[in-house]
Amino acid sequence: MGVEIERKFLVKGDRWRSLGSSEFYRQGYLTTAQDGCTVRVRLVGDRACVTIKGRTVGNRRAEFEYAIPAADAEEMLDTLCQKPLIEKNRYKILSGSLVWEVDEFMGENAGLIVAEVELSDPQQVIDLPDWVGEEVSGDPRYFNAYLAQQPFSQW
Amino acid sequence: MGVEIERKFLVKGDRWRSLGSSEFYRQGYLTTAQDGCTVRVRLVGDRACVTIKGRTVGNRRAEFEYAIPAADAEEMLDTLCQKPLIEKNRYKILSGSLVWEVDEFMGENAGLIVAEVELSDPQQVIDLPDWVGEEVSGDPRYFNAYLAQQPFSQW
Repeated sequence: MGVEIERKFLVKGDRWRSLGSSEFYRQGYLTTAQDGCTVRVRLVGDRACVTIKGRTVGNRRAEFEYAIPAADAEEMLDTLCQKPLIEKNRYKILSGSLVWEVDEFMGENAGLIVAEVELSDPQQVIDLPDWVGEEVSGDPRYFNAYLAQQPFSQW
Repeated sequence: MGVEIERKFLVKGDRWRSLGSSEFYRQGYLTTAQDGCTVRVRLVGDRACVTIKGRTVGNRRAEFEYAIPAADAEEMLDTLCQKPLIEKNRYKILSGSLVWEVDEFMGENAGLIVAEVELSDPQQVIDLPDWVGEEVSGDPRYFNAYLAQQPFSQW
């Protein structure tokens, strides 16, 4: 079991695009908002996993992740996960000692771009790159599980 | 991915108790009835798994199962799974070429005893042992996921 501590921000401009490389993520959820936790199926290239996350308390969240066969993930995404699926390009951008993940959403969430950084401690002080904008940590609308039910195009 | 084909029955009398040995199962669910599938966490001795099952169609059901660390299962059962948990002794009983699983439920489901047999083909003809009673295949009240929300003691 891990505990995820992360902060989430909107992004400004396009400069971040040239600062890292991206991979295509396809993921979906087996749970709905009524459940106390989320169960996510994710496929990135030929790597796949199931991730179980508890409720967010502050900016901490219990997380259990298990690698699974890519074929299982494809079948669960197609037949079991709620629609729409979340499809996004994830850019990894190194800034100082931190790795930022910038998610550029597609499909029904096109237009939304969110930057996340994982911290080792909730009190950790971070330097914000100049392309990082308004903080949205803890705003449930930006949870990927929420975007699968209320996509950005419907906000 | 597997497909589970099973039939489920109530049991008669106590003779089945002497026909096999049992293990204690502790399991819980991360999903609710509103979800199209169930996600189960199960712990048996020091063996644990996460199992994802699709909707039941006839007596077939898609099933994906992954071994996980027992410590993860304990933490998820205690903190993330819906209550009450399902606690039962499972007896394995060989009859002819079939292995019957008899679940004797405890806690809020005490008094309920159910026998299941897994088939290789939906049309397979089976001989019912004399301790097997009324068939309840497909009756959703007997799904373990349902018993976690509407335990037998509340029927």
